[in-house]
Amino acid sequence: MSQPPAYPLPRTGIGVDVHAWAPEGDDRPLWLGCVPWPGERGVVGHSDGDVAAHAACNALLSAAGLGDLGSVFGTDRPEMAGASGRKMLEHVRGLLEAQGWTIGNVVVQLVARRPRIGPRRAEMEEAMSAALGGASVSVSAATTDGLGFVGRTEGLVGLATALVARA
Amino acid sequence: MSQPPAYPLPRTGIGVDVHAWAPEGDDRPLWLGCVPWPGERGVVGHSDGDVAAHAACNALLSAAGLGDLGSVFGTDRPEMAGASGRKMLEHVRGLLEAQGWTIGNVVVQLVARRPRIGPRRAEMEEAMSAALGGASVSVSAATTDGLGFVGRTEGLVGLATALVARA
Amino acid sequence: MSQPPAYPLPRTGIGVDVHAWAPEGDDRPLWLGCVPWPGERGVVGHSDGDVAAHAACNALLSAAGLGDLGSVFGTDRPEMAGASGRKMLEHVRGLLEAQGWTIGNVVVQLVARRPRIGPRRAEMEEAMSAALGGASVSVSAATTDGLGFVGRTEGLVGLATALVARA
Repeated sequence: MSQPPAYPLPRTGIGVDVHAWAPEGDDRPLWLGCVPWPGERGVVGHSDGDVAAHAACNALLSAAGLGDLGSVFGTDRPEMAGASGRKMLEHVRGLLEAQGWTIGNVVVQLVARRPRIGPRRAEMEEAMSAALGGASVSVSAATTDGLGFVGRTEGLVGLATALVARA
Repeated sequence: MSQPPAYPLPRTGIGVDVHAWAPEGDDRPLWLGCVPWPGERGVVGHSDGDVAAHAACNALLSAAGLGDLGSVFGTDRPEMAGASGRKMLEHVRGLLEAQGWTIGNVVVQLVARRPRIGPRRAEMEEAMSAALGGASVSVSAATTDGLGFVGRTEGLVGLATALVARA
Repeated sequence: MSQPPAYPLPRTGIGVDVHAWAPEGDDRPLWLGCVPWPGERGVVGHSDGDVAAHAACNALLSAAGLGDLGSVFGTDRPEMAGASGRKMLEHVRGLLEAQGWTIGNVVVQLVARRPRIGPRRAEMEEAMSAALGGASVSVSAATTDGLGFVGRTEGLVGLATALVARA
């Protein structure tokens, strides 16, 4: 028979978020990783459409067993119109803390043709970390070699995982 | 030189499963998260097509280094025809236990246009947890903003991660 | 208020990589999991196009907060032309070690129509593990039931997660 390990195990979570790019000529701003991207095309969405923040929220909520963006924020609620990724991360952090969870780390990989995130990686990581009370946040990026809806520049994907623990 | 941590590290795993929705008029039932969904269209597949259970199995098998659904169950074996997600999870749990692995937690994010899982989240989590001997299971959901094969309602995806440990 | 756990938490990471299959008649070799696949069609790419190795690199880099393939290797650098997945994994391992990180484990799930990886799973896992100094590596596979760009045999996906820790 297997023996449980001698320390309380942390919990892992996973989160996805997808948004469609706004049509050409639409002038709404792009938000990604809790920072604005002036000059980049924005995305369609009820909130600010920040796939990095939303994927991170989903990963944290799943790790703590607290549902998902839809159940916590209600994607149709009028008060969520234009809600920022930062506010969502802050709210999720509060939900986890109220249940005694400590956030170990959160990582997000963006799968998108643009923007080039390298030059602003540190800025995004700091903004997201600040919204999570200083927890470690990594942001990275990949493309799809021109394939699928990401390759056709129809939308972008945030894919996240997180580790949380309780004393 | 780096020092190993002073406690045995758990292992993380990742798992995906995709099924195509059955054609209109096909009356096979939908199973998702080890519970039946009367009135919802089913999926095509050799087994019961439960993408939540299958993704969870893949995540657990990968974490423990024990292969994947294809190598463990053989997707073409006649005895697997119609096999339930519950039976698969129970079998995977047995394989892990036999190797001394304890399941820390499993999370599944469904990427699908339907069904709305919120009202039955707790039921799915309890059914999957029971099949895994009481391990923590989270089920959450996301959509793709109408993009890709999920957005065209051609199929649905289960994406899972898991943490396992050995004493 | 929540209490931090009494041990240093490991960190989780996530990584994706996608490559397009080479056109028919193209005779470049396929590399997957740091082993060659004679007789299988290769993939388009600047490097050797090993999606298993690349996804694993992305997962490890994200867990340690060290960027991604693009920032570390520069996908356009001439010296990376034809670079092997093994060399990339070795380089990533060096970056992590230099920062005091120990690799707990790495898992990759390939999402692809071919090749059948079962018969060569152990070989891939050993080759990748060797490039990572003996760390635990799992390789598994899934399909998409004929859906999306994977189902249309346009490309293949590697999806990875990893756990790293510091003493």
